Amino acid sequence: MSSFDSPLSPGRRRLLLAVAFAVAGVAAFASDLMPAPASLKTAPGRLAVTPGFLVALRGPAEPRLQDALFRLLRTVEDRTGLTFPHTPAGGFALAAGAAPAALVIDCGAAGPAVPVLGEDESYTLEVTETQAVLHAPTTTGGLRGLATLQQLLQADAAGWFLPAVSIDDHPRFPWRGLLIDVCRHWQPMAVIKRNLDGMALVKLNVLHLHLTENQGFRIESRKFPRLHELGSDGHYFTQDEMREIIAYAAARGIRVVPEFDIPGHATAWVVGYPELASAPGPYVIERAWGVFDPVLDPTNPQVYELLDGFLGEMAALFPDPYIHIGGDENNGVQWNANPRIQAYIREHNLKDNAGLHAYFNTRVHAILAKYGKQLIGWDEILHPDLPAGSVIHSWRGPDGIAAATQRGFATVLSNGYYIDLNHPAWEHYLNDPVPAGSPLTVEQQKLVLGGEATMWAEWVTPETIDSRIWPRTAAIAERLWSPREVRDVPDMYRRLAVVSRRLEEAGLQQESYLEPALRRLAGDGASAADRQALRAFVDLLEPVKDYQRGHHQPAANQFTPLTGLVDCARPDSAPARAFAAQVQAWVFAATPAAQDLDLIARQLAAWRQTADVLGQGLTVTAPRLQEAAPLVHALAEASAVGREATQLLASGRTPDAGWLAAQLARLDQAAQARAAVELPVIAPLRLLVAAAAAQSERKTLSADAWRQHLLELAKVPAKP
Amino acid sequence: MSSFDSPLSPGRRRLLLAVAFAVAGVAAFASDLMPAPASLKTAPGRLAVTPGFLVALRGPAEPRLQDALFRLLRTVEDRTGLTFPHTPAGGFALAAGAAPAALVIDCGAAGPAVPVLGEDESYTLEVTETQAVLHAPTTTGGLRGLATLQQLLQADAAGWFLPAVSIDDHPRFPWRGLLIDVCRHWQPMAVIKRNLDGMALVKLNVLHLHLTENQGFRIESRKFPRLHELGSDGHYFTQDEMREIIAYAAARGIRVVPEFDIPGHATAWVVGYPELASAPGPYVIERAWGVFDPVLDPTNPQVYELLDGFLGEMAALFPDPYIHIGGDENNGVQWNANPRIQAYIREHNLKDNAGLHAYFNTRVHAILAKYGKQLIGWDEILHPDLPAGSVIHSWRGPDGIAAATQRGFATVLSNGYYIDLNHPAWEHYLNDPVPAGSPLTVEQQKLVLGGEATMWAEWVTPETIDSRIWPRTAAIAERLWSPREVRDVPDMYRRLAVVSRRLEEAGLQQESYLEPALRRLAGDGASAADRQALRAFVDLLEPVKDYQRGHHQPAANQFTPLTGLVDCARPDSAPARAFAAQVQAWVFAATPAAQDLDLIARQLAAWRQTADVLGQGLTVTAPRLQEAAPLVHALAEASAVGREATQLLASGRTPDAGWLAAQLARLDQAAQARAAVELPVIAPLRLLVAAAAAQSERKTLSADAWRQHLLELAKVPAKP
Repeated sequence: MSSFDSPLSPGRRRLLLAVAFAVAGVAAFASDLMPAPASLKTAPGRLAVTPGFLVALRGPAEPRLQDALFRLLRTVEDRTGLTFPHTPAGGFALAAGAAPAALVIDCGAAGPAVPVLGEDESYTLEVTETQAVLHAPTTTGGLRGLATLQQLLQADAAGWFLPAVSIDDHPRFPWRGLLIDVCRHWQPMAVIKRNLDGMALVKLNVLHLHLTENQGFRIESRKFPRLHELGSDGHYFTQDEMREIIAYAAARGIRVVPEFDIPGHATAWVVGYPELASAPGPYVIERAWGVFDPVLDPTNPQVYELLDGFLGEMAALFPDPYIHIGGDENNGVQWNANPRIQAYIREHNLKDNAGLHAYFNTRVHAILAKYGKQLIGWDEILHPDLPAGSVIHSWRGPDGIAAATQRGFATVLSNGYYIDLNHPAWEHYLNDPVPAGSPLTVEQQKLVLGGEATMWAEWVTPETIDSRIWPRTAAIAERLWSPREVRDVPDMYRRLAVVSRRLEEAGLQQESYLEPALRRLAGDGASAADRQALRAFVDLLEPVKDYQRGHHQPAANQFTPLTGLVDCARPDSAPARAFAAQVQAWVFAATPAAQDLDLIARQLAAWRQTADVLGQGLTVTAPRLQEAAPLVHALAEASAVGREATQLLASGRTPDAGWLAAQLARLDQAAQARAAVELPVIAPLRLLVAAAAAQSERKTLSADAWRQHLLELAKVPAKP
Repeated sequence: MSSFDSPLSPGRRRLLLAVAFAVAGVAAFASDLMPAPASLKTAPGRLAVTPGFLVALRGPAEPRLQDALFRLLRTVEDRTGLTFPHTPAGGFALAAGAAPAALVIDCGAAGPAVPVLGEDESYTLEVTETQAVLHAPTTTGGLRGLATLQQLLQADAAGWFLPAVSIDDHPRFPWRGLLIDVCRHWQPMAVIKRNLDGMALVKLNVLHLHLTENQGFRIESRKFPRLHELGSDGHYFTQDEMREIIAYAAARGIRVVPEFDIPGHATAWVVGYPELASAPGPYVIERAWGVFDPVLDPTNPQVYELLDGFLGEMAALFPDPYIHIGGDENNGVQWNANPRIQAYIREHNLKDNAGLHAYFNTRVHAILAKYGKQLIGWDEILHPDLPAGSVIHSWRGPDGIAAATQRGFATVLSNGYYIDLNHPAWEHYLNDPVPAGSPLTVEQQKLVLGGEATMWAEWVTPETIDSRIWPRTAAIAERLWSPREVRDVPDMYRRLAVVSRRLEEAGLQQESYLEPALRRLAGDGASAADRQALRAFVDLLEPVKDYQRGHHQPAANQFTPLTGLVDCARPDSAPARAFAAQVQAWVFAATPAAQDLDLIARQLAAWRQTADVLGQGLTVTAPRLQEAAPLVHALAEASAVGREATQLLASGRTPDAGWLAAQLARLDQAAQARAAVELPVIAPLRLLVAAAAAQSERKTLSADAWRQHLLELAKVPAKP
């Protein structure tokens, strides 16, 4: 999947934001939990967590539950420094018999050892001053409750504790996934495992592994070894490794759904088996990014022989009932150019390429059915001939969901959850699979199984991938787990910062990858002041959005090092968000305070200082930071514009007539993306200069009219 | 090995330091290379490294060399952001035929695929403005030259380049090792691999894996599976994994020498086979630290049956001709208490326990010989009956080396290289296996094969272990590779800071583990200012040395979380070293400058500020930092004492008679180790207060007399 419509139009964004801001400040939950539980009641009091903390495990013996409990206790030990009672054999001591336990875990049926779609994931958690009790009808529910406990642990000057709460929780959608593309850039075992740990923490339950692509075939086939041997550069999961991943996921209540993308996206398939393509070979692994021609030939019986053998092998390897067959973005070039294929379409009354694709899917469906598997594929597989029971994975938009469910197909939503495109968390957060006022019928709504965040891997390596997935995916996890009404953006961001710490604790590196990456970028000659300025600067940057990076780096391919400035910039800059909030609060305030304006001015001065340090230092001396020079200049320029505005605002003096237009033009210039990054802190300055230009009118207008006037003068949507 | 005499007496330390300081400022090499080459000549000019950088590989085709070259090129791409020419098949393009190459690599014989002791590791490297040429008689020499190239790459404002040099290099000792104890705390594959990469970068060539201990049996035995199944908590290397480690090491020119510690340190052996111990079982895996009783029974024929089977199995697994059998620290308790064993000693005229141990070693030697292996063991195996050809691994001191070589045994030195004891790098660096003026004869000197840094694992986890090994081990690597005369301590420290960056680039985490660890310690409530103060504070701390940590944490064992303040403190604090140098320079200066005193005063004020932030913040609010309160107070106290001293020195006023003693007492108090950490920055303040107290005498004394006077007044050895 490579093309993508922005998930929300600017107009819709503004609307949704207005809704979000209307409830701002009214925190729906006092807790930090993410995803927010279906029901949470807080009470005064706390349960102290001390070295004597003992757990009682009731209900049927379930290794998955005990293992998860032990992992949790170990995590808590590492966080708190407490050592809980251990047995000489190495595990944790459990409360035996009627011994008093600080935590009682009581799960009903053990449930299936490998998680399945739609299983009961509910749990209740009662914490009082004397005891915490976790109840769940299934092991999986118990795992979800343990994830809540991990987030619930708090500290203050008096020590560690669980706050008194009463939680009754269950998910809104049964399919809550993260897709990881391990093809375009290989992602080894360690990446997958730490991301599974992160998923478990935020109650995601489907790992969708995109295993085949033009740029790599990443799973061992014992029946057709040329697939992985010639299609992978040696970077693939052995079947033993995949079993290890599946077990690791199952232990955390997570399904693994494999994707084998056919008939398009198939270059790596046909490197070893060129005779299966729709045009003559030979083929080599694709190194560039985009949509490519190679596609399997649906008229070739050998294709079905290979698919029967291969999918049979995979059906035995992957326990999940669903196998994803991709099906997206066949550009038709090879089919159109092949007279034999076009003749086949005519002879079999298949009408067109879409008909041929549907025919192919019907054959693949039959193969999967033979092996007891159900088919899931991207939007493009939707066709009148698509066999019932298939699932549509929607990447192209809400229309896809409507069309699929209208025909009775279950769907999973990824449109709006393309985390590789570097949009801010709030956009994904407010993207509801079944929003309030949805035009879908109740029956259609029931067919919406949930959604998946998609981590396409053109621009990520094992070093940077966590910073593109997390913490934003936790906001998507909340959207898919929590009630529809939980949609307070500021509160989401508050909790996202906390859960980001827990995700790091789980081994993810979205924060910690940065320091060494910046040291490498700055080079050996950098001083501590240089590095401090670089960190402050990079925290203000965001990678360009959507598919712009390819325009900035047109020659980039699979070999290009991803260790540059843009790889250190992270989506959804927190300091930029904070500055925007600061500026908006001031310009829209009923009675703006002088000291708040002063804080804004100080922030601008600090940026100026950062720009000066870098402009005279690393952007000259460090070869890798020379491309940052215009960005550093832009930050200095933006600071200067902002300074003029704050000075005017502080003095009450109205500027000359041309001033506003001139400043907006300077900001336009400064806001241009360069080196594949952009400076989101520049946007809120438009409001500030508008406020300075119009300040004489402020007293004369109502709050609403003033706001409207400013937005028009500044020519910005009211982005947070 | 748990007990340890400090490798250098204070007197010897002072002596060596005096020598080191005598050559300070006379940098032996202008380059950053570590280890310094045997011969390096620099020239003006540079070879630019650009995207067109092409390499020609001459000599016999050798996958090890090409793989190492490709790894190097990938590292350089990641560091520089350049993309070198790739082939469609995925590798790097090599210069074909007579095409001009920026780098020519010409290695002679491929040499053995698995490295062996004493093989030729020499190489030459000539870099001119047009070309770099690496010549080596063997592949291993080529690998060493590539490590040099990796360190040679430089950058300035004009771009990336190799400076023009002429290097002729070979190692001083053939055995340059790092021991990693994977038993006391399990260290998984990823830790081993990244440390192998670090070793290769600094030309270490022996990974000594300490695989069995009281606290864990860490290698799969297919013949005696109860060894690893019952002795490891499931944490052990499978034989497949070990083969992977051996291949990974061999690809980097590194031997893997396994250690199976017998007959003592044997608890984990006898968990599964209690009948082999010298006292009745049952046994459980030891969780505590220290020297323990369980020891194999040398009078039991079953012991030799198991050892024959097991060592035969290991001999087939490990290609290296040496197998380490430990042999240290049998406390004799079980042997003394067992009448049958004592009777056996008498009946076989073995004299005493030492005789029984020697008898045991003779039997083990015979088993190893049968499998074509040579025996190496710790000091304690030295005995008149020890078979010739065995190697003594000396952990107890220079006497061990003398005694062993006198009897014709080859030796490897680890005394003085106990990196787990948190001594500063300079101590290890100046610890020469064959120092100038060594009393050993020439023949004896030839028997000194080299040395090994020892990373015992009572107090390290995969998270922290790199910070205990690196970068100090690079100084040991230089001691073992470079000429004896290379011993300029300040220049070593300058280069150590650079090589530390390269080690991080190789995947080590001695620097990057800290930020997340401190975030965890500070907790969710910490502000940016809190975290900044904490980082500044922790950078001033060092973990206590030698075996003191056990006294600070007497209840600690294998289950204790190692995520505390002491685990964030790192040996050999760089800021503390810098401050000591600053103070020494000022107090001993012929004409001390007022502005240098002012810099010292500012540093003290900054510490005071740090102490204030932490004293009012995290040491109160964060449960894990409450133990830091007295240390923070100590830093504030030290700053206050220093402030008084700098004020007196600035004003020229001589304090009252009791002032010096009172200040030294305050510093004594502040310098006390707490929470298993100490504040090395306090020591140099003793000199400062002495200088303040005695300032009226400064003009009246010669430089030497003044220095001597100050050292006596301050009651400190002249530590750097």
